Amino acid sequence: MSRVAVKKRILRVKDAARVSRVDSLAAEEPLEIRLDGTPLTVTMRTPGDDFDLAAGFLVSEGAVGSPDDIATIRYCAGATVDGGNTYNVLDVRLAPGVEAPAPRNFYTTSSCGVCGKASLEAVRTVARWSAGDDPVELAQSVVVTLPDRLRAAQRVFDRTGGLHAAGLFTADGEPLCVREDVGRHNAVDKLLGWALREGRLPLRGTVLMVSGRASFELVQKAVMGGIPALTAVSAPSSLAVELAAEEGLTLIGFLRGTSMNVYTGERRLTSPERPSDVTPGAGYGSAGVRSTG
Amino acid sequence: MSRVAVKKRILRVKDAARVSRVDSLAAEEPLEIRLDGTPLTVTMRTPGDDFDLAAGFLVSEGAVGSPDDIATIRYCAGATVDGGNTYNVLDVRLAPGVEAPAPRNFYTTSSCGVCGKASLEAVRTVARWSAGDDPVELAQSVVVTLPDRLRAAQRVFDRTGGLHAAGLFTADGEPLCVREDVGRHNAVDKLLGWALREGRLPLRGTVLMVSGRASFELVQKAVMGGIPALTAVSAPSSLAVELAAEEGLTLIGFLRGTSMNVYTGERRLTSPERPSDVTPGAGYGSAGVRSTG
Repeated sequence: MSRVAVKKRILRVKDAARVSRVDSLAAEEPLEIRLDGTPLTVTMRTPGDDFDLAAGFLVSEGAVGSPDDIATIRYCAGATVDGGNTYNVLDVRLAPGVEAPAPRNFYTTSSCGVCGKASLEAVRTVARWSAGDDPVELAQSVVVTLPDRLRAAQRVFDRTGGLHAAGLFTADGEPLCVREDVGRHNAVDKLLGWALREGRLPLRGTVLMVSGRASFELVQKAVMGGIPALTAVSAPSSLAVELAAEEGLTLIGFLRGTSMNVYTGERRLTSPERPSDVTPGAGYGSAGVRSTG
Repeated sequence: MSRVAVKKRILRVKDAARVSRVDSLAAEEPLEIRLDGTPLTVTMRTPGDDFDLAAGFLVSEGAVGSPDDIATIRYCAGATVDGGNTYNVLDVRLAPGVEAPAPRNFYTTSSCGVCGKASLEAVRTVARWSAGDDPVELAQSVVVTLPDRLRAAQRVFDRTGGLHAAGLFTADGEPLCVREDVGRHNAVDKLLGWALREGRLPLRGTVLMVSGRASFELVQKAVMGGIPALTAVSAPSSLAVELAAEEGLTLIGFLRGTSMNVYTGERRLTSPERPSDVTPGAGYGSAGVRSTG
C-alpha cells in the first residue's frame, strides 16, 4: 500500500467562490526506531523507504558505515494494544561488534506502540483546555490579509531569507506577537512562552499564522495553547489535518492572494456575502465538507 | 547583543558574473533546556526570546499553563569548560507542586556544555571519512540544472505541495537517488540509508540537492555521508555555513534560475569561461572569499 499521499475532501475558497473538492495531502506518521528492542528515536515522517530511513539515521549518528554493520531491520508486529502491525515501529539489529550510537545524540523516549491514533489521543489527554468550542468568527476578508501582516511584522526575514515566522493575531487581524526562528516549532514555542508570561493562556479568539507548512507538531502546539485557528502559507500534512479535525481547530493552508484551502473547521470562516448568521446557500459549509474536518 | 542574523562574506554567482559580497545569514545555535538542573531537550534555534522559547516548550509539553507555574529561568554560567556563559544553556525551575513534563515527550540527552563550537567538534569526531579533500569539480552549468532535475524526479510534490525533497546527483548531474518526506532530515536520511545498502558510502564525487533551506543538521548529515557538496533552493543558516567551512564542504544556497550564492568551498565550482586549471582572474576565488568558507 502507498501511504505517501492521503486524499481528503477540502473547501477551496477564492473571493466569493467556495468549492468542495478532493485534495492530496502529504502523509505524515510517526516512526519509532528501536535498536535491539530499545526505543532509540521517534521521527514524524512520510511512510515509505522506512528501512532506508532507519539505516540512514544510524549513518547520520555515526553508528554504521557499511551494509554489513546492520544485521536485520524489521517492522515490529504487536506494536498496538490489539497486536496489530502499525508499520510505524521498526527494530534494527546491529551486526556483532557494531556499537550503538554514541550517547551524544542518543535521544531516548518512553513512547511505545506509536501510531497516529495513539499520538492524537495522547495530545487530547494532556491539553488543559479545548479550543474546539471557541465560537470566534474569522472574516475571510481579514484572513487573506494575514500573510502580508506577518511579513510586515517580521524583523529579519527580508535580510536573511532563512527564518520561519509565526504570528499570533486577533480575529480582527491585529498582531499580538510575532516571532522568527530557523525552526518553525521554535517560533511557535516563543509565541506560547510570550502568552504564558503575559497570562494570556488559553489563547481564545486568536489565529496563528505560520510562514511555511502546517505539520502535526504545529497543530499540536496550537492545541496546547488553546488557539482555535491555524493558517499557513503552504500545505498541511495528513496528520495535521487529522488532529485539527479531532480538536475542532480551523486549519487553513495555501493562504495566498485571495485564495485559501480550508481543511477543517470552516464553520468559523465568514464572508461579507455570506455572514454566518444567514442560512448558508448551496456549496457553503455542507455537511459533507464538514465531516472531513 | 543581537545574534539573530550573522554577516558573512559570500560569492554571488550569476551566469559569468562572480561578485564577492557580504550577506546576512539567519543565526542558528543549539539551546539546551534544563529542568531543575537536568537536561530536558536540545533544540537548534535562532538566539533571542530564549526564556519565552523554554517556557513555550513547557506549554507545548503540557507542563505549565500559568505564569506562576514557573519559578525562575536563567542562563547557566559555567556552561563551557572555561566557565564562560555561552547563553546556549537555560535552567528552568518550576514552582513548588508543578510536575515535570509527562514522560511521553520527555527526551533526554547526555549532551552538556552545548555551544556551537562543541557541536562542530563532536561531529568531526564521529565522522568516518572526510569529504574536505574530495577533488570533485562541479560545473556551474550543471549545478544550475539541479533544481529542475530534482523537481523532475519528485514523485509526490506536485500533488500535495507538502513534501521536502532531497536528491543525490553525480557531478555530471545524473540523479542517483531522490527521496521525499514531510521532514527534510528524513528525506536525507532515506538517501543515506539507500547509499549504505548499496555499499556506496562514502559518497565521494556527489552533490546533494535539497528543496528547502540548508540547516546545520543537513550539513551534518552530508558530512556523515562523505558528500562533498550541498546545494539548496533557499538560505543556509549561520551554523550550516560554519560547519561546511570546517569540513571543507561546498555549500551553495539560493540556487534559482542561473544564479546562486556560494557560501563555502567555491574552489569546486568551475565555469566554461573560467575552468579550474586556468589562473583565476580578478574576482574569482579570491583568498578573501575563500577564508569565509
